Amino acid sequence: MSKIITIGREFGSGGRELGGRIAEILGYAYYDREIIIEIAKRTSLSETYVKNITEHKPVIPFPLHTSRTFWAVMPDFDQVVQKEQHNIIREISQKSDCVIVGRCADYILRDEKPFRIFVYSELESKIKRCIEKGNADYENSESLSEKELKQKIAQVNRARAGYYEFYTGQKWGDKAYYDLCINTTNCDINKLAEAVAKICQ
Amino acid sequence: MSKIITIGREFGSGGRELGGRIAEILGYAYYDREIIIEIAKRTSLSETYVKNITEHKPVIPFPLHTSRTFWAVMPDFDQVVQKEQHNIIREISQKSDCVIVGRCADYILRDEKPFRIFVYSELESKIKRCIEKGNADYENSESLSEKELKQKIAQVNRARAGYYEFYTGQKWGDKAYYDLCINTTNCDINKLAEAVAKICQ
Repeated sequence: MSKIITIGREFGSGGRELGGRIAEILGYAYYDREIIIEIAKRTSLSETYVKNITEHKPVIPFPLHTSRTFWAVMPDFDQVVQKEQHNIIREISQKSDCVIVGRCADYILRDEKPFRIFVYSELESKIKRCIEKGNADYENSESLSEKELKQKIAQVNRARAGYYEFYTGQKWGDKAYYDLCINTTNCDINKLAEAVAKICQ
Repeated sequence: MSKIITIGREFGSGGRELGGRIAEILGYAYYDREIIIEIAKRTSLSETYVKNITEHKPVIPFPLHTSRTFWAVMPDFDQVVQKEQHNIIREISQKSDCVIVGRCADYILRDEKPFRIFVYSELESKIKRCIEKGNADYENSESLSEKELKQKIAQVNRARAGYYEFYTGQKWGDKAYYDLCINTTNCDINKLAEAVAKICQ
């Protein structure tokens, strides 16, 4: 059976960077935006649209207490994207040892007992990291004012929490659902990755 | 300035064992029950009595909204023990690099920026650990039935949470107050300690 490491992460905490370094150190495959690209390819939807769907819980058009099932009332594209995401995550987890960032992979693969990491940091540290490094997912992070960055961080993390909780029924970032929760405030991610890789092995 | 590692831990999670191993690996001093013994020596109270006080929040005999200060309404022995505990923790933190288990040391030493670890695990794992290893603080753990152990674990952890929250105003085990939260379910503490020591260095 493959060894799987999943990374949940607050926006601006360096979780993606940490995941990438751990994958490099251990020689594992690394999946993050690759999943979006693959969903887009399989569904013929644009990457931007898929990315948006996989970062927000769906807007249900009418109350859930109808006689129809929960799944049936989800907007069509949400269903299609979620099903493809499940399929792709299952496929890659069977291919080889891997690190998967976000996408509720910890929950989707719960039967495979992945090593579940959650990465977080203090707000000031997130702002500093965003200003210094930018963020590949949010191209213009570095051009935002500190106030705008604060709003963006809060908004992205609220969306991630909502999405995770909608699809898993679990509280995003609640340590009970993770094996290791790492506060990256003032951390050297490279040094940290070496030690964390040792724990995951 | 000394390097300080503090360990908060759920009862039965192996936190003390982990702290001890980390101290051994790093060559740091290790403090746990040594603090109780020292408080007992300085206050002439019995170790059992001191231990009990440092594991339960005090019972305040009348409401806090009097004109007297919070500190003034605390029972006398609680005040004496808490003050000695503060003094001793500050003293040992200045002596040498150290690992301190429990006793709100993370909060008391917050200005020294200790590396703050919280150790937790799933209930089944706690029960298994208590049955296999017993617990030096609760001598008869191994002779309890599974049901009694469950009750004991819940009771000790409730008391620890209450004590911590009373003296720090922070939520015990809330990852925001720690640098690393470690789930020891199914973990080999020795192997884990090697990697965690690397993170703390």
